[in-house]
Amino acid sequence: MSTVTLIQDAETNPRVKAVFDDIRATRKSDFINNFWLYLAFDPQLLEETWQGVKSVMAVPSALDPLTKELVYIAVSVTNSCRYCVHSHTAAARAKGMTDEMYADLLRVIATAGRTNQLLNAMQVPVDPVFDMENGRE
Amino acid sequence: MSTVTLIQDAETNPRVKAVFDDIRATRKSDFINNFWLYLAFDPQLLEETWQGVKSVMAVPSALDPLTKELVYIAVSVTNSCRYCVHSHTAAARAKGMTDEMYADLLRVIATAGRTNQLLNAMQVPVDPVFDMENGRE
Amino acid sequence: MSTVTLIQDAETNPRVKAVFDDIRATRKSDFINNFWLYLAFDPQLLEETWQGVKSVMAVPSALDPLTKELVYIAVSVTNSCRYCVHSHTAAARAKGMTDEMYADLLRVIATAGRTNQLLNAMQVPVDPVFDMENGRE
Amino acid sequence: MSTVTLIQDAETNPRVKAVFDDIRATRKSDFINNFWLYLAFDPQLLEETWQGVKSVMAVPSALDPLTKELVYIAVSVTNSCRYCVHSHTAAARAKGMTDEMYADLLRVIATAGRTNQLLNAMQVPVDPVFDMENGRE
Amino acid sequence: MSTVTLIQDAETNPRVKAVFDDIRATRKSDFINNFWLYLAFDPQLLEETWQGVKSVMAVPSALDPLTKELVYIAVSVTNSCRYCVHSHTAAARAKGMTDEMYADLLRVIATAGRTNQLLNAMQVPVDPVFDMENGRE
Amino acid sequence: MSTVTLIQDAETNPRVKAVFDDIRATRKSDFINNFWLYLAFDPQLLEETWQGVKSVMAVPSALDPLTKELVYIAVSVTNSCRYCVHSHTAAARAKGMTDEMYADLLRVIATAGRTNQLLNAMQVPVDPVFDMENGRE
Repeated sequence: MSTVTLIQDAETNPRVKAVFDDIRATRKSDFINNFWLYLAFDPQLLEETWQGVKSVMAVPSALDPLTKELVYIAVSVTNSCRYCVHSHTAAARAKGMTDEMYADLLRVIATAGRTNQLLNAMQVPVDPVFDMENGRE
Repeated sequence: MSTVTLIQDAETNPRVKAVFDDIRATRKSDFINNFWLYLAFDPQLLEETWQGVKSVMAVPSALDPLTKELVYIAVSVTNSCRYCVHSHTAAARAKGMTDEMYADLLRVIATAGRTNQLLNAMQVPVDPVFDMENGRE
Repeated sequence: MSTVTLIQDAETNPRVKAVFDDIRATRKSDFINNFWLYLAFDPQLLEETWQGVKSVMAVPSALDPLTKELVYIAVSVTNSCRYCVHSHTAAARAKGMTDEMYADLLRVIATAGRTNQLLNAMQVPVDPVFDMENGRE
Repeated sequence: MSTVTLIQDAETNPRVKAVFDDIRATRKSDFINNFWLYLAFDPQLLEETWQGVKSVMAVPSALDPLTKELVYIAVSVTNSCRYCVHSHTAAARAKGMTDEMYADLLRVIATAGRTNQLLNAMQVPVDPVFDMENGRE
Repeated sequence: MSTVTLIQDAETNPRVKAVFDDIRATRKSDFINNFWLYLAFDPQLLEETWQGVKSVMAVPSALDPLTKELVYIAVSVTNSCRYCVHSHTAAARAKGMTDEMYADLLRVIATAGRTNQLLNAMQVPVDPVFDMENGRE
Repeated sequence: MSTVTLIQDAETNPRVKAVFDDIRATRKSDFINNFWLYLAFDPQLLEETWQGVKSVMAVPSALDPLTKELVYIAVSVTNSCRYCVHSHTAAARAKGMTDEMYADLLRVIATAGRTNQLLNAMQVPVDPVFDMENGRE
């Protein structure tokens, strides 16, 4: 059940086809998941979103691909985004996340959720030593 | 400005002193940050919280220490926990996070925030292939 | 699957009937959606909630009806409220939201989600020029 | 620093004065906290908001006044609402919350934050026995 | 649909069996809900999580058991944790929450959600009188 | 107090200067607010973020500029992003938002926060009529 209508034969639109082809080439797989299929209702939004995700997640950068997926899961869990949790947990497993690593990830995510609540409740002043502003460390 | 009263001479309480000593020994530093100082208003809560954080963050596990800090930052940002963001960003820098890695982390956290909004809006059905239940992959 | 029991024949209760009649008259439709049907388990809560929603959403005010629905969607998406996202997206379409407008709304909601993460991470000081306190602009 | 301008001599407006007088009478105190002072920029919003808060928090109901404050704190912490956390923690203390009760409250809030993260990550199916729909228990 | 695989015959693992036995003994019931069944994929995480929840929720403390469940519901609702909302609403009912109390809880949770939004929007300065820091009251 | 160091003379970097010049030209103002000044610590992140915000917020599209700011405020409030709330409320005022419109916006944001809590608590099933999937309306 979605708020948008799934477009049948979306790839008859050349802008959609170009994005889907790039997704397939980037991932070396014919599978297109529902996010992109449904997003095809607006080709411009599809293009912008895929370019944004691709440039961050599929291009080599300072953090390795698996670490980026773990961070993505952490944000998605905290935002209670069901689809994102499922898709990025699957992506992390595909990039090598073992059950042991997943349990460790859950442990960190849960601990952060626990102490975030304590600090948001207690409103403790931030230690000046944490300030990076003006080059101070 | 906090919702609890900072205890002066908290370490005259032996339970508080034991936790503070363990924090110093674990971190090899005399510095105790405000979270623990303010939490000392209730020694039991202080003990439980420190044991929980220590066992997850200070004990070697499947994920390396820096990755765990990056995940911790990601959750804290999403929960808008100002103190936690400051303390764990400082911790990540102390464990080797460079400006380049931090910028990359921000990129992933921002991208997740962006697509989480799209998926929570569109309510796209989760692809069956993502289901891990009952051992299916 | 709900945490409350759907009341059969809820309208035998005159307080519930009065609210349902007002919903039908206000919306010029016989359809009562599930939110109100389930809320009928407590007539007082039903009355208060409907009065609150009606006075804000169904009475002419400074913002036009469609703009109010777009704002409602934005909040509901960010709170990950599945029901609210579905019902208010349907309401926005009924009030004239086209696919093009919906795509634009998604673009803004996603961009805000993206920069909210950056600012909650970086904890940038607010520019004094934004301060409205004490009449300063 | 606020997004609205604090109105000087707000009580020269009779609608504002009526609300402020009711706040003083209800709380048996001359003190008006900043929330209401700043909200006075729009008398209608001030009236509606005070009526809503008063009818829920200041009128005897199924839950006792202190329990209602504890629940209010729990929501405000989770929403990271700094002002609400401060004002309702003060209100809870005024209604009898001891340091021991506050520490216990923090323990529950933190535990919920911890397991919420685990469940939002694991996406475990809800046990059918929890369903209240259609009168099943 | 879950991100982890439900372990069949999880109790052949003695660590899992020990936790499940303790859950049954603590709750005086043979029923083990899905959270623990799925968490059994990692015995250490299962042990830590159960110990944490048990020590807070099943051990007599400053707040009574029902009040703790109400607070747990409030946090879970605000975090949009579907499973937690269902399981803790069921737990609260089992501990004596009536429909009238539930409606009152909803009223408080909704009012907090409403004023949290106002304060997070208006960014009103916190009244100095709310400050507990340094023993001031 | 920030987690990044404010770069002095950031515009000596030509990539930073190009972005700042475009911000000035787009907004027809010499003022650069702190978000961009601090983001300059990583020129690539600065470029990507500005391009994303500009293409959505500064380019004519289906929704008018003021409506887009109102939606941006709604998301930022719900995410408890203090900086974003201040900067976009200022932007909305600059684009014509009156006090009366702002009060109305607050009313909608608060009402959504209120009913989001009710629906996330009650977990009411979504009415089939809201489903847009497969072209059904």
